[in-house]
Amino acid sequence: MSNDPINLYDYEERAKLTLAHNDWDTIDAGAMDMFTTRRNRSAFEALTLRPRFLRDITDRDISTTVLGEKISMPVMLAPAGSHMRAHPEGEVATARGAGMSDTLMMLSTSSNCSMEEVSAAASGPLWFQLYHRGYELTEMLVHRAEEAGFKAIVLTVDTPTPSPKERDLRNKTTRGHELGNFRGSDRPRSEISGTDETPGWEVSRTPPLTWKELDWLRGLTELPLVLKGIRTAEDAHIAAESGVNGIQVSTHGGRQLDMTMGAIEMVPEIVEAVHGNAEIYVDSGVRRGSDVIKALALGARAVAIGRPLFWGLAVNGAEGVHGVLELMREEVDRALAYCGQMSVQELEPNLINIPDGWGPGSRMAP
Amino acid sequence: MSNDPINLYDYEERAKLTLAHNDWDTIDAGAMDMFTTRRNRSAFEALTLRPRFLRDITDRDISTTVLGEKISMPVMLAPAGSHMRAHPEGEVATARGAGMSDTLMMLSTSSNCSMEEVSAAASGPLWFQLYHRGYELTEMLVHRAEEAGFKAIVLTVDTPTPSPKERDLRNKTTRGHELGNFRGSDRPRSEISGTDETPGWEVSRTPPLTWKELDWLRGLTELPLVLKGIRTAEDAHIAAESGVNGIQVSTHGGRQLDMTMGAIEMVPEIVEAVHGNAEIYVDSGVRRGSDVIKALALGARAVAIGRPLFWGLAVNGAEGVHGVLELMREEVDRALAYCGQMSVQELEPNLINIPDGWGPGSRMAP
Amino acid sequence: MSNDPINLYDYEERAKLTLAHNDWDTIDAGAMDMFTTRRNRSAFEALTLRPRFLRDITDRDISTTVLGEKISMPVMLAPAGSHMRAHPEGEVATARGAGMSDTLMMLSTSSNCSMEEVSAAASGPLWFQLYHRGYELTEMLVHRAEEAGFKAIVLTVDTPTPSPKERDLRNKTTRGHELGNFRGSDRPRSEISGTDETPGWEVSRTPPLTWKELDWLRGLTELPLVLKGIRTAEDAHIAAESGVNGIQVSTHGGRQLDMTMGAIEMVPEIVEAVHGNAEIYVDSGVRRGSDVIKALALGARAVAIGRPLFWGLAVNGAEGVHGVLELMREEVDRALAYCGQMSVQELEPNLINIPDGWGPGSRMAP
Amino acid sequence: MSNDPINLYDYEERAKLTLAHNDWDTIDAGAMDMFTTRRNRSAFEALTLRPRFLRDITDRDISTTVLGEKISMPVMLAPAGSHMRAHPEGEVATARGAGMSDTLMMLSTSSNCSMEEVSAAASGPLWFQLYHRGYELTEMLVHRAEEAGFKAIVLTVDTPTPSPKERDLRNKTTRGHELGNFRGSDRPRSEISGTDETPGWEVSRTPPLTWKELDWLRGLTELPLVLKGIRTAEDAHIAAESGVNGIQVSTHGGRQLDMTMGAIEMVPEIVEAVHGNAEIYVDSGVRRGSDVIKALALGARAVAIGRPLFWGLAVNGAEGVHGVLELMREEVDRALAYCGQMSVQELEPNLINIPDGWGPGSRMAP
Repeated sequence: MSNDPINLYDYEERAKLTLAHNDWDTIDAGAMDMFTTRRNRSAFEALTLRPRFLRDITDRDISTTVLGEKISMPVMLAPAGSHMRAHPEGEVATARGAGMSDTLMMLSTSSNCSMEEVSAAASGPLWFQLYHRGYELTEMLVHRAEEAGFKAIVLTVDTPTPSPKERDLRNKTTRGHELGNFRGSDRPRSEISGTDETPGWEVSRTPPLTWKELDWLRGLTELPLVLKGIRTAEDAHIAAESGVNGIQVSTHGGRQLDMTMGAIEMVPEIVEAVHGNAEIYVDSGVRRGSDVIKALALGARAVAIGRPLFWGLAVNGAEGVHGVLELMREEVDRALAYCGQMSVQELEPNLINIPDGWGPGSRMAP
Repeated sequence: MSNDPINLYDYEERAKLTLAHNDWDTIDAGAMDMFTTRRNRSAFEALTLRPRFLRDITDRDISTTVLGEKISMPVMLAPAGSHMRAHPEGEVATARGAGMSDTLMMLSTSSNCSMEEVSAAASGPLWFQLYHRGYELTEMLVHRAEEAGFKAIVLTVDTPTPSPKERDLRNKTTRGHELGNFRGSDRPRSEISGTDETPGWEVSRTPPLTWKELDWLRGLTELPLVLKGIRTAEDAHIAAESGVNGIQVSTHGGRQLDMTMGAIEMVPEIVEAVHGNAEIYVDSGVRRGSDVIKALALGARAVAIGRPLFWGLAVNGAEGVHGVLELMREEVDRALAYCGQMSVQELEPNLINIPDGWGPGSRMAP
Repeated sequence: MSNDPINLYDYEERAKLTLAHNDWDTIDAGAMDMFTTRRNRSAFEALTLRPRFLRDITDRDISTTVLGEKISMPVMLAPAGSHMRAHPEGEVATARGAGMSDTLMMLSTSSNCSMEEVSAAASGPLWFQLYHRGYELTEMLVHRAEEAGFKAIVLTVDTPTPSPKERDLRNKTTRGHELGNFRGSDRPRSEISGTDETPGWEVSRTPPLTWKELDWLRGLTELPLVLKGIRTAEDAHIAAESGVNGIQVSTHGGRQLDMTMGAIEMVPEIVEAVHGNAEIYVDSGVRRGSDVIKALALGARAVAIGRPLFWGLAVNGAEGVHGVLELMREEVDRALAYCGQMSVQELEPNLINIPDGWGPGSRMAP
Repeated sequence: MSNDPINLYDYEERAKLTLAHNDWDTIDAGAMDMFTTRRNRSAFEALTLRPRFLRDITDRDISTTVLGEKISMPVMLAPAGSHMRAHPEGEVATARGAGMSDTLMMLSTSSNCSMEEVSAAASGPLWFQLYHRGYELTEMLVHRAEEAGFKAIVLTVDTPTPSPKERDLRNKTTRGHELGNFRGSDRPRSEISGTDETPGWEVSRTPPLTWKELDWLRGLTELPLVLKGIRTAEDAHIAAESGVNGIQVSTHGGRQLDMTMGAIEMVPEIVEAVHGNAEIYVDSGVRRGSDVIKALALGARAVAIGRPLFWGLAVNGAEGVHGVLELMREEVDRALAYCGQMSVQELEPNLINIPDGWGPGSRMAP
C-alpha cells in the first residue's frame, strides 16, 4: 500500500500518472516558454524566513478573514476553468473539498458545473470569478451569482487578448466539457464562452474591459469586488482609488503572457501602492506553508492555489482537494510556530529576509 | 500530419533536421565559445514586462517607420550572407517573405543573389548592408544599391579583422555559393569577397575602415546611413556627432569576437549617448515578441532577426520567412496588448523591470 | 586495499554504502525540500579566504577554549540523537572518538547511551544538550548532567513544534533504539521522549519553552548555558541580555523547518547583536577546514559538526569519529597557515571576502 | 587526418587522451574541491569586452616588455614542476617552444631538466622560479641561476605548508622524475626537494619564508625579484614597499588551498595597492586571448599560462608548446583589433565591463 501524499508535490506526481496526457498538459502548461511559471517558484524560494523562538505559541491561530468572510486558514482555492478535466464531479467536488477544510473557493465563469450547483454543494464561502464578455452576459452572471449566495465578484483583468498555451496547440486540445453556467443557452458557444474553440485559447474576442466597465460593474451589484491579475503598482493605485475591495496579485499561474516576474515579486510594490485601502491576495506558485507566511509577511492577507487543487481533484475528488488543503494547513501552522507568531492576522515585522536584487529592480522609461 | 510551427524554436528544430550538417553549423555557430551568443538570450530573459490592464487596446497598432520607411511591425530582417545555404532561391525568397509580411529586409554584400535580383523580387523596403572592402568596390556597390532602389546603406563596422567560427574550421566548411553582387567579375574571388577562402573566415584582408572612410562614404551618396555593430556609448556618441541616421546595436549574433555582453545590454548606454539624434535598432537574440517590446521599452525603434530567417528559409523558402515573421507579429501584438499599449511608437514609461546588476556594471580604466 | 578517507566526503560516501537505507535517510534528511540543508553549504562556498604570506607560521596553534574548556581545535561534535543508528556502541564510541581528538562532545537528550555511560567513556569535555519536556524531566536531566560531570547545558530552542523529515515518513521509519537517559523509567515512551512515535517527528507535544523557562533553568544550575538554534539578531539580543553564556547558531542541519538562510549567513548579525557578551558557535554545513576559518573570521569562537560524526561512526566507530576530526584538524591547520595566522584565537581582520548580496539582504515588515 | 587544434581546449582534450591517467590527474588537479580552479575561469568569463570600431588598427602590436625583457606577446609560461610527466624532453622542450614564440619561460625549482640544460636550449628570456628551502639551498640556486643567464628570480610565496591534491592521494601518485637542479647531489631527496615523497604533497617541511628572508634574498643577487602568489592588497602593499620588481598574482592554478577567489578577481585591489611601483602579472585560468586583454585592462602587464603548456608538451613537445602560444597570439591579436587598440602597452580606459558584485565584495573583521 502506498503512503498518503505527504506534500503537494506528491499530489502532483500522482495526478500526472492519473490524468490523460492532454488534460495533464492543459493543467500544467504555462504561456510560451513557461518562464514566468518557473519564476513564480524561484521567486518564493529566494525569500527566507527569520524564525523566532522561546515564545509560547501553543494556542496559535491560522484562521483569518477575507472581506469579512471567516476562513480557517489563509489559503483559498483560485478560480480555474473546467474542473471536469480532473474529476467527473468537477467544481462540485472542489467546493465540497473546500468546505471540508473550511476555506473559500473562487468559482470560474468557465466552470463545468453551474454556479447554482456549486453553491448547493458548498459549505464554505464562495466568490464568483467573472470574465467580462459583454454587458448583457456580465449582468446575467453577476445577478445569478448574487442569487446563488456568492459573497464577492472576482473580476479577472489579465486576459486582454488570448494567450495560447503552446502545449495545448501541439496536442490539438479542445475544450471538451460543457460550460455549466451557460447550459441550455441558445447562444453559440463561441459567443458564450468567449472563445472560438481554437485549441489553447482560453479567452478570445472579448469586448474591451476598461476602468469604465469597472465603474459600471460596481453600479451593478452590492457585492464586494476583487480585481484578479493586477501586476503593477500603477494599476493597483488606480484600482484602490476606484474603490475595489481586494486585489489578487497573480500571473495567472504563468498562463497569460510569459516574461513577467513571479507573482510574489509584485506584492511589495502593490501593497505599498494600495496603502491598506484594499485587501491583497496572491496566487501563482504557492506550494509550501512557508510560502504563505512569506506572502503574508510581505503584506498579503491570504493566498490562493490553482494547479494543486487540480492535483487533489485528480487523485481523489473532493477528498483530494481536502487533502491538499490539510497539508497546506499543517505546513502553515508549522511555519507560524517556527516564526514564533500567534496569529496569521498579526505578524511581527522582519519575519523574512529579502535578498538584494530580488524583485523588480529599476524601471525603464522608453 | 505535423502541426504548423507555433514559435520560432519550432522553425529552428525543423531547420536543423532539414539542413546539411555543415550548413546548419555555419548558420548556428558563434565565435569561439559562443559565450556572447548565449548571453544575447539570457540578457533578454532577465528583463521582465510590467503588464498594464483595464485599457481599451482594441485598435492597437504595431506598425512603425524606420528612417521614414513604413513597416507593418518593428521586426526587420538582419543582413546575413549566403542565403542559398538554406534555400536554393536564396535572398530572392527572403525578400519575397519580407514583402509578404510588409517589413524591411537588409541585404548583405555577401548575398548569393545580386542586389538587382533581390530588388526585383521585393515588395517591401530594402536596405543594403555594406562591407567596406576598398574605395572602388564600395563606390560600385553603393551606386548600384542606389540604382536598385535600396533605401539606406547599413555599414557593418564590427569586422575589423576575421573572426573564425570554430565549428566551420572543424568542418572544413568552404564558402560554396557564388556571391551574387560580384558575378561575372574578373577579379579574383579573394579580393572581391574580402576573404582568402579560409574556411570559417567571414571577412579578411579588409582595408582600414575608420571614421574617415565614414565621412567619405557620406559624401558618396544621399542615402541615409546606418552603422551596424556599434557596441559602446563612446562609439555611439561619435557616430551621432558625425551625423549617421541609425545605429544597429548588434553582436553580429555572437559571431564576431566572443566575450561581449548581450546586444540588448548595450542598448541603454547607446540610447543615452545618442540623445535621439539617430534611430536605434538592435539584433542578436530576438526570439519572442516580448523581446521586441523590451527592446522598444529600452529605447530601440525596431529589432532585426538573423538566424530565424534562415530557419524559415530552410523550412519553406519565402513562405517560411513569412511564417517566421507572422509568428513574431502575433507575439508582438499580444505583448503590446498585455502591456496595455495602443502603439509601438508611443510606449508609456516603466513597461519593463531591469534587475539590479543587469547590463554593463562599471567600466575599468587600465 | 582501498585508500584511507582523505576528506569528509569520503566518509560520507562510505557511510552511505554501510548504513541501512532507512538509517542513512534519517541521518541525511533535512526538512521538506532540503532547501536549507543545501544552502548551508552554498553559503559557506560563497565566502572566500584572503591568504596572507611571508609570515613565520611554524608554531601556529589551532587550540582554543569554549566557555573555558580547552579543546585542541575549534571543531566540536554537535548534539544529535540515536548514534546507535550508525554504530552499536552509539554515543560511547562517539565520546571516545572526541576524546582521542581532544575536543568537546555535546550529548543529546535523545542519546541511546545514558549520560552516565558517556561520561564514563569520555576523556574530553562534555556538554549536555537539553530538550525541555517539562519542569520535572528537565530538573532530573540537568541534575544528572551536573552529577555526571557535564560542563554546560546546551538548550535547544529551535523545535517549537515537530518538523517531519519527509524521507522518514516515506520510509515509515520508527525510532528503534532505546533512549539511554530514560532507561528503566516507567513513564510511557511518548511522554519521556516527547514524541508519539510518529515516524519522522523528532520532537512533539513539548510544553512551551519561553524566556520564562530560561530564567527558571538558570536558577536550577550553576552550569553555563548555551542556546542552540538561535537564528536572528533579535533573539540573540534578548539571549545576551538574559545572560546566556553561549549561542550556537544553527539550522539544526536544515532538519527543522525548511526555507531559512544557511547558518553561516546568520552569524554576522548575531555576532553584532551579542556585542561580545556570549560566545558564538555555529553548526550546519561545516565540511572543510576553510569553513572553520570563515566562521571564526565572522566572529564565531568554534564550530560543531553533526552529520559527519555519524559518517565516522558508521565507517569505523570511535576510530571513525576520530578520523573525521583529524581530517578537520589537518584542514583547519592548513587554512590557518595559508591565512598567515598564528592562532585561531587571534585572527587578523579582513581574512575573508563577503560577496555583495551574501546573507540576509533587507528585512520586511508586514 | 584530424584537424590541427584550433583552440587551447583542443590541446587539453588531446593531452588527456595522450597522458597516463595519473599524470593527467597530477597536471589537472587543484586543491580539495577544485572550487578555486573553477572560479579562476568563471571570474574571467564574467568580465566582458567593450569593442571599439572604426579605427585603423592595421599596424597593431602585441609585443611588450616584462622587467625590460622584450617578449612578442603578453603571454608567458608559468613555472611548473616536472615537465617530463608530459614529455620525455621536459623543460628543454618547453624552453624551445617558448623561444619559437619569442616569449618568456619561468623555470621551476622542481624542474626535471637542470637550469643549465634549459638555459642552453632556450632562445627567449628565462626567469628562475625559486622555492625557498633554506638559506644554503637558496643561495646555491640563485647563484646558479645568475650564472646560467636567468633574468629574474620569481619567488613563490604561496606554499607556506603542503596542500595535497586529493586526486594524487587517491592515485597514490609518486614524484617519479628526477629533479634536474639537484642531480648528483648527495643530499637525501626529501631534503633537496623539500618533500618527503608523500604523494600529492608538492612542498613540505619548508623552513619559514618571511619578509626577513625576502630582504636577505635581495641582498644575495642583483637580479630583479618577482613575488608569485600574492593574493591580497595588503601583502602587495608590503611587497611594493619592500622594493620587489614584480608581483605575479596567482592562485597557483587553484592547486594551493582551495576557497579563494579567482586570480583575476585579485588583480584590481593589488594594482591599486602597488601604485605602479611593481609590474603586475597574473596566471590561473587564462585560456583565451580575450582573457589577456581583460587582465591588461585591469592593470596587469602580462599573463602566464600553466596547464596549457603541459597540454602542448603532451601533444607535441616543443612544437606543441609553440602551437599553444601561437593560438594565444592569434587570439590576443584579434581581441586587440576588436577593441580598436594599437598596442597592448597603451590600452585606452573603459575597455571592459565589470559586473556589479564581481570580485571581493566587502571584507570582514573578526
